[in-house]
Amino acid sequence: MPIKPVLGVTMGDPTGVGPEVILKALQSPPPGCRVIVLGDLAVLQETAARLASSLRPYEWQVGDALPTDAQCLPVLALSQLAQTERVPGHPTRAGGDASYRYVENGVRFTLAGTLDGLVTAPISKAMWQASGHPYPGHTELLAALTDTTEVRMMLDGSPPPFLGDRQRRGGKRPLRVILVTTHLPLAQVPCALSCERIETTITVAATHLHRFYGLPQPRLAVAGLNPHAGEAGAFGDEEQRLIQPAVEQARSAGCNVVGPLPADTVFVRAVRGEFDAVICQYHDQALIPLKLLSWEDGVNVTLGLPIIRTSPDHGTAFDIAGQNKASPRSMQAAFGLAAEMTQRTQTAR
Amino acid sequence: MPIKPVLGVTMGDPTGVGPEVILKALQSPPPGCRVIVLGDLAVLQETAARLASSLRPYEWQVGDALPTDAQCLPVLALSQLAQTERVPGHPTRAGGDASYRYVENGVRFTLAGTLDGLVTAPISKAMWQASGHPYPGHTELLAALTDTTEVRMMLDGSPPPFLGDRQRRGGKRPLRVILVTTHLPLAQVPCALSCERIETTITVAATHLHRFYGLPQPRLAVAGLNPHAGEAGAFGDEEQRLIQPAVEQARSAGCNVVGPLPADTVFVRAVRGEFDAVICQYHDQALIPLKLLSWEDGVNVTLGLPIIRTSPDHGTAFDIAGQNKASPRSMQAAFGLAAEMTQRTQTAR
Repeated sequence: MPIKPVLGVTMGDPTGVGPEVILKALQSPPPGCRVIVLGDLAVLQETAARLASSLRPYEWQVGDALPTDAQCLPVLALSQLAQTERVPGHPTRAGGDASYRYVENGVRFTLAGTLDGLVTAPISKAMWQASGHPYPGHTELLAALTDTTEVRMMLDGSPPPFLGDRQRRGGKRPLRVILVTTHLPLAQVPCALSCERIETTITVAATHLHRFYGLPQPRLAVAGLNPHAGEAGAFGDEEQRLIQPAVEQARSAGCNVVGPLPADTVFVRAVRGEFDAVICQYHDQALIPLKLLSWEDGVNVTLGLPIIRTSPDHGTAFDIAGQNKASPRSMQAAFGLAAEMTQRTQTAR
Repeated sequence: MPIKPVLGVTMGDPTGVGPEVILKALQSPPPGCRVIVLGDLAVLQETAARLASSLRPYEWQVGDALPTDAQCLPVLALSQLAQTERVPGHPTRAGGDASYRYVENGVRFTLAGTLDGLVTAPISKAMWQASGHPYPGHTELLAALTDTTEVRMMLDGSPPPFLGDRQRRGGKRPLRVILVTTHLPLAQVPCALSCERIETTITVAATHLHRFYGLPQPRLAVAGLNPHAGEAGAFGDEEQRLIQPAVEQARSAGCNVVGPLPADTVFVRAVRGEFDAVICQYHDQALIPLKLLSWEDGVNVTLGLPIIRTSPDHGTAFDIAGQNKASPRSMQAAFGLAAEMTQRTQTAR
């Protein structure tokens, strides 16, 4: 009998919706996996009580056996926040620092093999900055902690099958988008693009979808930057100057990739089944179609890391924290996708 | 009994899919309207024969009564193209010149009241240029012929009710998008935006949706330019510098408008019913969600003109012209929307 993979989930900012969506999501845990929370025991116990959750968070230590009772939730306690640092919707520096340590330890235990994959709940960038951890977000920290130079953000709009509603797409394939650039002012996007950066995005995407999604030859499309993909240079030259050469180089290197394709039709072609993923040049080019099709199901996946990492596609939502209003769908999807990826690589071992 | 409004439809490039989609669309004509084609009689007769259409195009002249037989299709013959100028998929300068005159006369007859609204089939910009009509497209020509300085492109993703499939949206509202800028390289978009341009777009949109859609107080949203609508200046300042002031000025002038809103969520909110239309800063911001939701139903509407004008959301498609492959759905939707707009203004008279 194969050993069930173990996912770690970092609790995120203690005063955001992280603890709530973790507990809600684990009411329907991803099949075939065990889950350990890296966080604060008191916060999780208080949240469980507030939600009247049937889950019972308890302190777990490395080396302990995992519980046989499915209602027992093992927590690797990495902080002991004071009462005043545990008020939902009121972030503190201590909570920011703690949320940093959850991730730091999550990466360490995943690299060491104690965990098979990592799911991360949302953190507050402002509180990371305030507590002396000047990373713009998870992705940059994960890259630094794993000595990775080229990471890319993928958003996968596919709800995992155990959530049971793939049908509602009317048989359409989920949309997956991979970003060449992320949080840049739009005016800076054209300068930030380079042939190398686009080509690396293609190869990182192809490698990930092959290794973790089991697609033998992932079919990738690359969106253009300009209207009508530049219409042969009439509306901009980045397609001819940067994107086309990058696509050709990646194809020479064995990638199954086409483009640049007009951005206003490439997503339609993808959801109709022509492509497994679309490489996008900038944030909103990717996020507009993704959120339109997968409002609460989108999962953020970091490509290029030596470890498996997914996260829900939402923030700390301090405005609704502690009010039992947060939807766990994206967190459930993040667990489901991490579980699928983990199982696939275990099979391949 | 009210007189039925008369729509004119310009045939577009004689060698494109225009004649085909017009004949196919008029098999299910928009209810409550009469239609006259401005085009080439031989082209339409040959196309009808090739499609085995039940419609019989015949020469109609201004002042003639409209036919009582629904199968008779009146054609205002504005060209007599030679055999070699009527080969589908092989555009000529003579055809380009003819397609220009269809539009010129269409505008003239609509301004004069002979026609109540104009639907335009796709033309070839290259053939307009080659035949001495250096307009980038219909919109610019229509603005020039009607002495209009501020026109805007709207795309309406709503299939008209007579096509009978509004249900397929699952009760969601159609998406309508209005563009501040259109066919510009992405790198030029930030510079092309101005507070005045954005404010004019808002007021032109509000006026149109009030007058032609019968919405007493259209609910408009304005999308931001940058990721997360700039996140308070962290990812660009156009929101604070240009968009926010434009929205405030338009609101002072009585418009029901909010924004700037993050582009990756504003369209979700619109289709859920929160807004009647979304003002978009650039081409793909508008076209990506529109085409994703309304693949073949999108209608292009020119706002700001003194006349009603719609067109299908596709080009001449020379590659499939004459092969009976072109879908008439967008042309049907363009007829339906023009008919609705015409009837609404007639009622208001």
